[in-house]
Amino acid sequence: MVENKFPGKDITLEDIETKFPLAAKKSAQHKSKFLVSGVEFGGDLIPVFAGPNMVESEDLILDVAINVKRSGAHFLRGGAFKPLTFPYRSPKYNETREKGIEWLGKAKEKVGIPIITEVMEEKYIPLVAEVADILQIGTRNMQNFPFLTACARTGKPIMLKRHYGASLRDWLGAAEYILLEGNTRVILCERGVSVPHTHRATSRFLLDLQVVPAAQEVTHLPIIIDPSHATFWRPWVTPMALAGIGAGADGIMIEVHPDPPNSAVDPLQPLDYEEFSSLMNRSNAVARALGRRVL
Amino acid sequence: MVENKFPGKDITLEDIETKFPLAAKKSAQHKSKFLVSGVEFGGDLIPVFAGPNMVESEDLILDVAINVKRSGAHFLRGGAFKPLTFPYRSPKYNETREKGIEWLGKAKEKVGIPIITEVMEEKYIPLVAEVADILQIGTRNMQNFPFLTACARTGKPIMLKRHYGASLRDWLGAAEYILLEGNTRVILCERGVSVPHTHRATSRFLLDLQVVPAAQEVTHLPIIIDPSHATFWRPWVTPMALAGIGAGADGIMIEVHPDPPNSAVDPLQPLDYEEFSSLMNRSNAVARALGRRVL
Amino acid sequence: MVENKFPGKDITLEDIETKFPLAAKKSAQHKSKFLVSGVEFGGDLIPVFAGPNMVESEDLILDVAINVKRSGAHFLRGGAFKPLTFPYRSPKYNETREKGIEWLGKAKEKVGIPIITEVMEEKYIPLVAEVADILQIGTRNMQNFPFLTACARTGKPIMLKRHYGASLRDWLGAAEYILLEGNTRVILCERGVSVPHTHRATSRFLLDLQVVPAAQEVTHLPIIIDPSHATFWRPWVTPMALAGIGAGADGIMIEVHPDPPNSAVDPLQPLDYEEFSSLMNRSNAVARALGRRVL
Amino acid sequence: MVENKFPGKDITLEDIETKFPLAAKKSAQHKSKFLVSGVEFGGDLIPVFAGPNMVESEDLILDVAINVKRSGAHFLRGGAFKPLTFPYRSPKYNETREKGIEWLGKAKEKVGIPIITEVMEEKYIPLVAEVADILQIGTRNMQNFPFLTACARTGKPIMLKRHYGASLRDWLGAAEYILLEGNTRVILCERGVSVPHTHRATSRFLLDLQVVPAAQEVTHLPIIIDPSHATFWRPWVTPMALAGIGAGADGIMIEVHPDPPNSAVDPLQPLDYEEFSSLMNRSNAVARALGRRVL
Repeated sequence: MVENKFPGKDITLEDIETKFPLAAKKSAQHKSKFLVSGVEFGGDLIPVFAGPNMVESEDLILDVAINVKRSGAHFLRGGAFKPLTFPYRSPKYNETREKGIEWLGKAKEKVGIPIITEVMEEKYIPLVAEVADILQIGTRNMQNFPFLTACARTGKPIMLKRHYGASLRDWLGAAEYILLEGNTRVILCERGVSVPHTHRATSRFLLDLQVVPAAQEVTHLPIIIDPSHATFWRPWVTPMALAGIGAGADGIMIEVHPDPPNSAVDPLQPLDYEEFSSLMNRSNAVARALGRRVL
Repeated sequence: MVENKFPGKDITLEDIETKFPLAAKKSAQHKSKFLVSGVEFGGDLIPVFAGPNMVESEDLILDVAINVKRSGAHFLRGGAFKPLTFPYRSPKYNETREKGIEWLGKAKEKVGIPIITEVMEEKYIPLVAEVADILQIGTRNMQNFPFLTACARTGKPIMLKRHYGASLRDWLGAAEYILLEGNTRVILCERGVSVPHTHRATSRFLLDLQVVPAAQEVTHLPIIIDPSHATFWRPWVTPMALAGIGAGADGIMIEVHPDPPNSAVDPLQPLDYEEFSSLMNRSNAVARALGRRVL
Repeated sequence: MVENKFPGKDITLEDIETKFPLAAKKSAQHKSKFLVSGVEFGGDLIPVFAGPNMVESEDLILDVAINVKRSGAHFLRGGAFKPLTFPYRSPKYNETREKGIEWLGKAKEKVGIPIITEVMEEKYIPLVAEVADILQIGTRNMQNFPFLTACARTGKPIMLKRHYGASLRDWLGAAEYILLEGNTRVILCERGVSVPHTHRATSRFLLDLQVVPAAQEVTHLPIIIDPSHATFWRPWVTPMALAGIGAGADGIMIEVHPDPPNSAVDPLQPLDYEEFSSLMNRSNAVARALGRRVL
Repeated sequence: MVENKFPGKDITLEDIETKFPLAAKKSAQHKSKFLVSGVEFGGDLIPVFAGPNMVESEDLILDVAINVKRSGAHFLRGGAFKPLTFPYRSPKYNETREKGIEWLGKAKEKVGIPIITEVMEEKYIPLVAEVADILQIGTRNMQNFPFLTACARTGKPIMLKRHYGASLRDWLGAAEYILLEGNTRVILCERGVSVPHTHRATSRFLLDLQVVPAAQEVTHLPIIIDPSHATFWRPWVTPMALAGIGAGADGIMIEVHPDPPNSAVDPLQPLDYEEFSSLMNRSNAVARALGRRVL
């Protein structure tokens, strides 16, 4: 056997110096802090993004905006442009998209809550960037490098979701593309990885909380978690959100819908208003026990 | 294509009724509570097992027993008989084994702390059962069914580690073998699963915290977590322990050594006394924020 | 970040020298050749083990023995003692076990075909060893080290199945336990590993054919494949068997049943006699194209 | 526990009818056959794509073109535009790109061999499409849906690599995007998936050959395999190529370089001319044993 020392997907000191120097920490204490629409990331506050999977209608998104803000959410999330595994779109989906962005804009104005929403295609970047306070790059676009660069150039803060099959090393490489454009407000988001066993037919992914301390060991970028997409199962969302805070996550993203079983997409995962309010209170209690805060 | 409805590794209602009826919950609130040497499992308390990977010497185990007890640990853990991936044993290892059990017994008597230790072979069950308050069955023996039955018949409480490649369904099937012998004090222990990406060369496993709410949805058995073996990396142990409490774990197992870099085995993962004491305090704060307690 | 050079689950030159020196190749050409009941392993011949998942009755096993021998199978396989994920046995299963071994013995005598069958418990080793020409150690017992040693001491050839979650390194460590007892006739068997995606609800495992050249690079032991258990799906068994021969496998294990849909266990995976006969002919054609042979 | 029947990543009959009707087989015998530059796909011939990872220079690509054609390769492959995990490009890489496409064009003209090369960005589609006979879409772009559509609209045959973390269902969904544009010449390419264990530090992926019969059970599209990228290790390339033919693959993609250790990228995986020639002869022998052919 010929031995070799190929590092595989593991991170080496050389990687840190030559592959993602901008994403890498310069010292043990190095951590990015930045403001987005008045909300601080990377500090004691653990910001919460909440809202429906899909911006179903103007009324719905307004109602959700009012309710999640009341419970203490810092950002309203909602999907207008959504990646679809199959090309056959429901009429519902075709109706939203541009409209969805418009409705998010109205909710933002009326309720006074900043917006995070996904952008999927280069041609829609200007449209989305006009309303969104944070541009969300989805799991499937994590290594769509020209698109990362185009998003970065808007100067807007960017939340980069980890691909469900990507290593931490690959993820930091993708973040480096954004940082290289001079855009320093990058938020990493863990949303579940593909693993051999996921406990239920419904749950296709496993929320990788070990990546939270692993990322914080090598990068100064804030890292948040999305337990809704990872678990795909409402009863597990709150425990995994609390777990994420225990692990040291710098933010949480939660799906909230006034009537989960009638959600237009993925009805098994959103919390209702009451569950979300309870999650906020419990999250805050855990955060405060650790010297941080949600509320 | 011929469709079929094979459930694979997912848990169905039929499984619950016919495959592991004793391990399955009978109602949403159903949860086992039981005492082991005066410590309650399955209730508000989150018991902590702490100690070295290997019972290196009488002095070492006594010193650890005193120190982890002082910090609030409920059980002393320590490996006397250890599974070895390769058959070539260090002289150190051959010295311990029976001796290790004896030393654990002395530490128990002198310090007044109950013991959990692994039993690996049927012929040593009586020896181990004389000293151990809980018999630990390791990841590699999870589906060694005759051995599970033999351990169960001692009447001793049993901690059943999940195999690093096992589904929740397989794990509950293994627990059912123990319960079927009339032994009701079974504790499940998640210790990390094999996944495609684990962030560092050192970390071979990912602590699956999603299995905590997943298990609690179907079984009444308490489930604890072992972040030391899962992460194999000292800086991640405390965040993952806190995460586990957030996820709802019913106990924690932590490796502690007075001088981690000089631990006889796996020197990258144990906490020292001070780190362990800090972990206990932070764990307790998180637990209390959620209506439970460690101390 | 502190870098470290921990090799994880990868095989290093040091492993080869110190962890499994008996299993390791001594030179690039080093390959074990040995006879079992007149059949050569590790040479040009690619022996085939065929038979039902379960030895359902004396008549069934006799009928299968006659038919698989006629098609060229070298060994009759059949499960008498079987590991069961859940402790509730069908009456059918309780009937077989000792009886199953007896029936295998009769088929062996009448048809003149050697036997491979699983042994699961130390106390049954003598019973099984009396009839079996090869002792099969199942996936769940791969790291049941005292059991490996006990089987090894019979002097019988041993087929060691890889655990579905085990690395090649762990597998060779287990083989080393057997070799260390002076038992040199060890056959490795790949039977599918747990992976994130397996294509159908029925198929829980992926046949890892890459492990064939990977194993042959470091060990002199013959390695065979079991596409029936890996695919769990009849239409994929023949393509994967042929693929295994392409990859360089030193043997094949195939489930065969006269009436697959009415097989007592796992009815989705066995081939019928005609399909098996066709598999043998096609396997032989591929083997001969590569300078080896099945028939 | 509330049971649910969510199919997860498994393929159901409903998927076939509503999610990827164009990619789905209409009958058991349904298989697409089409010509690309005179070479038939989906029939008895198993076309081979061969060439260097990177089009390093005009001389190199010309030399490779001559040599792989002489050994029987049907297409010349070579990377001009390449996805880079990290944004820091070697000067070497910046030199090629447009130049690389030009050099491929010259080799095509001089040697008379058709070309397959990767296209990575929408703006370069016209440039690449002028020279390439088949557009290659890489693993990281598999679910870059707007890009799939843009490539499809060129009318050029498309080879769609599977993402290393994607299920078969997701892959067929991506193919459906291309087919929906009326582009029917779609070739699937399996290039290795992320799994828990991959045998060596160098090998980050496992070639999933089980996906070959799994895909052929549900889709009429030809499926080829890329053992070079999957194994990342020269000694395993030939065995896995032969295994792929055994599994029923409709084509093979192989990295070939005149001087592998001095390959500009990934020097551990290319075959040299002699090894490639031997692979062609052995592949052809296996293919002919199964009623197909490479040469």
